Amino acid sequence: MTIAATGLPFDDIRRLMSDLPTADQKAIGQCRARDAQLTKPPGALGKLEAMAEWVAAWQGSYPPRISRPVVAVFAGNHGVVAQGVAAYPAEVTAQMVANFQSGGAAVNQICKTFDLGLKVFELALEKPTRDITLDAALDEADCAATMAYGMEAIAGGCDLLCIGEMGIGNTTIAAAICHGLYGGKPEDWVGPGTGVDAEGVKRKAYAVARAVELHAAHLHDPLEVLRRLGGRELAAMAGAILAARTQGVPVLLDGYVATAAAAVLHAMRPDALDHCMAAHCSAEPAHRNLLKKIGKEPILDLGMRLGEASGAALAAGLLKAAVNLHNDMATFASAGVSDKPA
Amino acid sequence: MTIAATGLPFDDIRRLMSDLPTADQKAIGQCRARDAQLTKPPGALGKLEAMAEWVAAWQGSYPPRISRPVVAVFAGNHGVVAQGVAAYPAEVTAQMVANFQSGGAAVNQICKTFDLGLKVFELALEKPTRDITLDAALDEADCAATMAYGMEAIAGGCDLLCIGEMGIGNTTIAAAICHGLYGGKPEDWVGPGTGVDAEGVKRKAYAVARAVELHAAHLHDPLEVLRRLGGRELAAMAGAILAARTQGVPVLLDGYVATAAAAVLHAMRPDALDHCMAAHCSAEPAHRNLLKKIGKEPILDLGMRLGEASGAALAAGLLKAAVNLHNDMATFASAGVSDKPA
Repeated sequence: MTIAATGLPFDDIRRLMSDLPTADQKAIGQCRARDAQLTKPPGALGKLEAMAEWVAAWQGSYPPRISRPVVAVFAGNHGVVAQGVAAYPAEVTAQMVANFQSGGAAVNQICKTFDLGLKVFELALEKPTRDITLDAALDEADCAATMAYGMEAIAGGCDLLCIGEMGIGNTTIAAAICHGLYGGKPEDWVGPGTGVDAEGVKRKAYAVARAVELHAAHLHDPLEVLRRLGGRELAAMAGAILAARTQGVPVLLDGYVATAAAAVLHAMRPDALDHCMAAHCSAEPAHRNLLKKIGKEPILDLGMRLGEASGAALAAGLLKAAVNLHNDMATFASAGVSDKPA
Repeated sequence: MTIAATGLPFDDIRRLMSDLPTADQKAIGQCRARDAQLTKPPGALGKLEAMAEWVAAWQGSYPPRISRPVVAVFAGNHGVVAQGVAAYPAEVTAQMVANFQSGGAAVNQICKTFDLGLKVFELALEKPTRDITLDAALDEADCAATMAYGMEAIAGGCDLLCIGEMGIGNTTIAAAICHGLYGGKPEDWVGPGTGVDAEGVKRKAYAVARAVELHAAHLHDPLEVLRRLGGRELAAMAGAILAARTQGVPVLLDGYVATAAAAVLHAMRPDALDHCMAAHCSAEPAHRNLLKKIGKEPILDLGMRLGEASGAALAAGLLKAAVNLHNDMATFASAGVSDKPA
C-alpha cells in the first residue's frame, strides 16, 4: 500500500488501478437468499435492501458488518484563495481542524450520534498548494505521496469508510477538476461554496477558466487533472477511495469536493467507484450534475453544503440500520408469519 | 385527554381541534440565535437546521430534546379484505404483532439502531371493522374511543412520536379515505400495497369506488370519512397525532396509511399537522400525491413501502442527529474559529 520511492510515482497508482477487485457474487447471493426469508414483503425496504447487499458485496464476505466505521476528514489549503474565491480566510482550515480535534464541529456530533470513529488528516496546512491559475498545484511526487498518505485512512481496521474534507477554497478546486474532466462551461461547475456572493462566484468561474486553459494540454490524463488542478485533501481522498477498494471497504462519498476527488478515479476507470455510494446531494449546485456524470444516486437530499464528511456520516447511520435490518430481522419461519398469498 | 362517556363522542374531538397550540416563537428565536453562532456557514446544514428548530418550536421549550423518543405502531384488521384487496391473509396482522413483541420485525431493528422506544397498540384484531363497501367501518362511539385509545401513545412521557401501523388491507382503507377527502379517481389512490398484482389493484379501486359511493352523502365531514371509510389503527393514529399536538410532542409520520390518518385532521384544520413532519415518501404511488395535498416534503425517499413505522423510525435517527448538532456544536467564539469574511 506504500508508494515506492523509485520509478514514476503515478505508475504505482496506475498499477493499483489496473487490478481492482470486483463485487463478491457469492456474498450477493447469500444476501438475496436471506432477504427473501425476512418478515416483510419482497422489496418493501426499498434502497435499504440494496444498501445491505452492497456492503456485503464490497466487503467480500457475508454477513455484511458495520462494526468499525471510520469517518475520515482530510484538510488542505489552496494557493488559489489568492484569487478571491473563498468566503472565509485560509486560517479557518486550521481552526476547523482544531475544532474537529476538540469535538466541537458538526461531524463530531454526527459521529457521536451514530457511534462512528473519526480520523482527521491534516495535510501540510502551512504549505498551501500552488495557485492553479498560475502553476500546477502539486508536483507528481507530492501528489502521489499524498495519495499514499490518504490510504492510511483505513489502516488499523475499518469496515466502512466515510470520506470528507475541509479546505478553504476547495470548491473552486473541485470545480476546476470537474471542468478539466468534463468540459462544459466554468460556470456549470462553480457555486457559492461556503457562501460567496455573485461577484465571488464570478471570480471562481474566472479562476477555473484560467486554470483549465493553462493546463489544457495535459488534461487527457485524470491523474494530471488531479495534480495540476487539485489539492492535497483531494489527492488524499482519491488515495483513500482506492485503498478502500483494494482492501474490501465500502465507501460513502460526502459532498461536491469529495465527489470531485472520486471523479478522477472514475475518469481512469468507469467501474472504479462501484464500491462507493453517494451519501447525499449537496446544495452546491454542481454536485447534482457531477453525481450524474459518475452515475450515482444520492441516498440523502437534505440541502446540506458543509463538507467535513457531515453528509457521509449521516448516511452511515442509515447504512447501519440497513445492515442491522438484514442481519437481525426474523424470518417467516422463525417468527411463524405466513408468507403465503391471501 | 379521555373522551367523556356522555355527549356525542366526536364533539370532544372537535373541541380539542378547535383549540390547538401553536409553534413556540420564543423557542424558534432561541434556536436561530444559537444556530447563527455555530461553527459552520449559515444554512450549511440545510434541512437539519430546520428540523432542530421544528423540534423546539413544537416541544414549546428550548433547547430541543430527543431523550424519550417513542415509536408507536397501531395494528388493526379490516372487513374490506373480503373484497380480495390484500396480498396476505388477515391472520398476518396478529402474526406481525407477535413479531413486533418478540423483537423480530423491521421496526425493532431500526429502534435498536437509533435507541428509540417502541410501543405496539393492538386494536381488537379479532374484531375487524365492517366492510366499507357495505357499511360504515365503525360507529361513532367506537371511532372516538379508538381515537382516545391512540392518545395513550404519548402517555408516560415522550418528546418525539413516530407514528406507524400494521393492518392487512389497510392501503385500501387509506385509498378510500383519500378518495373520500380529495376526490379524483379511485385509481389515483390505490397501488400494489404489500404486493397485489394488477388484478388486485383493480379490485382495490373497485372496492374504493363502491365504498365512497355508498357513503357519499356524509363525506363533507372528515370525522365521518374516518369512521365510515377508516379503520381502528387509522382512528388511533389520528388520536395520537392530536394528543401529541396538545402535549407538545413533535410527530414523524410514516407512510401512506399513517399519512391518510393524518389527512383527516388536516381536512378539519389545515394547520392541524404543523407539528408533524413526513418522515419519508413511500413507494406506494399515491403517497407522493397525498403528501402534496397536506403540504409536506418528505425527509427521506428510499423507496420503502413496509409501514410499521419503519420510515418514521429511520427519520428519527436523522432528527436525533439534527438536535445533537444544534445543541452540542461549538460556537465560533468557543472554538476560536473566524466567522469574518475573507
